[in-house]
Formats: sequence, C-alpha cells, structure tokens
Amino acid sequence: MKTLVILSGGMDSTTLVYDLVNQGDEVVCLSFNYGQRHSKELECAKKTCEKLKIEHHIVDISNIHKIVMSQNSLTGNKEVPEGHYADETMKQTIVPYRNAIMLMIAAGTASTLNFDRVAYAAHSGDHAIYPDCRPEFVLATKLVMMLGDYKQVELYTPYIKIPKANIVNKGLQLNVPYEDTWSCYKGGEKHCGKCGTCVERLEAFKLNRMKDPVEYD
Amino acid sequence: MKTLVILSGGMDSTTLVYDLVNQGDEVVCLSFNYGQRHSKELECAKKTCEKLKIEHHIVDISNIHKIVMSQNSLTGNKEVPEGHYADETMKQTIVPYRNAIMLMIAAGTASTLNFDRVAYAAHSGDHAIYPDCRPEFVLATKLVMMLGDYKQVELYTPYIKIPKANIVNKGLQLNVPYEDTWSCYKGGEKHCGKCGTCVERLEAFKLNRMKDPVEYD
Repeated sequence: MKTLVILSGGMDSTTLVYDLVNQGDEVVCLSFNYGQRHSKELECAKKTCEKLKIEHHIVDISNIHKIVMSQNSLTGNKEVPEGHYADETMKQTIVPYRNAIMLMIAAGTASTLNFDRVAYAAHSGDHAIYPDCRPEFVLATKLVMMLGDYKQVELYTPYIKIPKANIVNKGLQLNVPYEDTWSCYKGGEKHCGKCGTCVERLEAFKLNRMKDPVEYD
Repeated sequence: MKTLVILSGGMDSTTLVYDLVNQGDEVVCLSFNYGQRHSKELECAKKTCEKLKIEHHIVDISNIHKIVMSQNSLTGNKEVPEGHYADETMKQTIVPYRNAIMLMIAAGTASTLNFDRVAYAAHSGDHAIYPDCRPEFVLATKLVMMLGDYKQVELYTPYIKIPKANIVNKGLQLNVPYEDTWSCYKGGEKHCGKCGTCVERLEAFKLNRMKDPVEYD
C-alpha cells in the first residue's frame, strides 16, 4: 500500500507513521504549517521523517485565509485555555475546517501521486471537542473522496474509535521514540503540563504506567 | 441571508453574484488564485465586486502544494485542449480536489464570519467532465459542512441541475454585463474561441440568440 500520512508531529500521528512503516506500507508524510503557536510540532515531524528516511512535505496554509485563522487560540488572538481536554473552554482551540482543508489537500496530493490512501490519526478522545475528528465527519469526508475525483483515494483512520492511551500502548510496543513528539498548544521551551493537550498526554502515559520522556515546566 | 459566494470571474459565478444581490442577500465574494493560466478571470472578479460595491477577498492557494498543481493543463505542464467541453481530452483540465479545497476554505471563512451559506455556481454542463461539480459531490460536501463544524453553514448551489444556456438566460434578464467575465482557459489577450470553455460559452449565447460581448481571436 502507498499511504500518505498527515503528520502533525504529535503523539498520535507519529505512532501512525511507525505503525504503517511496521506494516510494510510505502509512506510519504504531509505536515501543515497553519500558523500554529506550537510550530515546534513541525520540527518533530521533520525529525521523525529523517529518522525513518521518509519523504516529507510541509505545506504552508498559514495565509490561506486570515479570516479563518483569526479567532481561535491556536493561531489567533485568544489565549490557550488550561484544564482538561474535554472541557468546554477547549472549544477556543477549534480552527474551523482545519482538518477538512488539510484532508482535501492531502487527498489531492495522494490522487496526483497515484497513492492508495490518506491516513489520519484522529482518535476517540478528540470527539468531545472537535467535530472534525468524529467518525461521522470521517464518513462524510470519505464520500467526498469517492465522489469528487476519478481516483478513489481511501481515507484510513485506524484510531478513530480508540482512546489515546491505547495509541500510546501500541506505540510503546513499536518502540516509538516519544521524545521526538510535541503536544503542548502553548509552544514554549518545554511542555507546559497544564493545557488540555498536555493533560491528555500525561494521562495517556499514566494509564500505561509509563513516564513521558519529554520535559515539563 | 448572508452569503459568501465563490466567484471565479467566469459567467456562471458572476451571474450568481448578480442573482443573489438581486434577491437582497448580503454578499461577500471569495476568489482563488490557484496558479491558473487564465488569471484574467481574477481581474474580472475584482471588477464585478467593485461595480457592485461588494467586499472581495482573493485567497492565494497556488503554493498549497506543488504536487497537486503540477499535472494538469490549467496550472501545470499540459497544454490546454481544444474542442468541445464534454470531450474526453478535457479531463486534462482537472485539478484534483480543486473545488473541495476551495469549498472547505470558503466554509471555514463563512463559519468564522457567521455567514449563513456558501454559494457555488456549478452547473449541469460541468458534470460530464468534472466529478467535483456533480450533485452527489455537492451532497457529500454538505454532509461534511453539517458534521465538521458547530456552525452549520449551508452550501447553496442553485444552478447544479441547469445548463449554462439557462444561466445566461437568467443573467440577461438581470442585465449582467458579460463583458466583465472571462472564460478562456488559455488566458491570452482575447478569448481563443477554441478551447472547451470558449466553445461552451459561445454555444450558451447562441442558444439565447444573443451575441457574446467579449472579443475573440
């Protein structure tokens, strides 16, 4: 299988890359610069691809539209909220249609490269806050990909119904070097340990009775 | 209604803008620079918005991914085919996922602006060649827009089942100045009169027993 992976540089998509390489897929990775505060994740994505000797493209969509990017806390003028990932305040971290835009660019790339599928690491912990990580969104996106192009590129989302702790469990078995991943939305020197994605990350390691190898403030 | 119109600067989307303004909608237009040879259409889009005193944004997606843009005759290394719009050779003018990418950016913009809907002027003459202009693609895209975001921006495609001649008929009733539109894929000084979109344009005027006001080579 030839698979184009959307690699953020976080834990889930990095695990997915190791998972697919382990399965013998021919993998190419696509990352997106959308003006995120935590652009450190892109350095991690690059490192992972270098280690695995995988072709890597970073697509700059930060200027695609100032309006879309202006009113949220990942790219815009709002502060990154602290607390649990499932809290209502986390809605400030929604960049509307971010995933749909990325998926369509990835699908267009896969179609042009004659690749079989696009892989995307949304997981069940994302569902509470992010509608564009839910199974029904994935299903609708699959339909667009079947109907909007002559080449029927598949959308592969193997983690869509499993929680983050299980992804980490799989990654630990695959010896994924989690020190090469970045989660914190604040994008500081070290992980803050307080924002939703840090809290979720720490919880996933704790449930696996393992210590997270990244440093915290 | 607050409607964000995807305006290419061609006849169909320009008619749609006049149609919606005539209906009393609050209209903002979004155009895309995707590296098309016929970037003259963008000047036409600008002119239409200036005449109607409508807010207009041009989004540059020409660099979103060199791979997607590389292998077709609108933006890449292939020649623009001549002949009828429905001919098999016209498939060379497909930019994979072009419309899906534009629609998702437009939907994200409409969501952020708290607009009610995105309007898009695909018509029945597009169906033969372009899968991303067909009703089933539109339906799947509507699903993505209902499921992928908290604000349920509508996708409005009033011309999806009517042919170009009927759009021109409507436009003539609305006094659309068709001299302010551009169709030719070749993007020369004047319309070539030979490429698929020129042939289709001439046919639409002929069926209305009217003369196209633009100049031809």
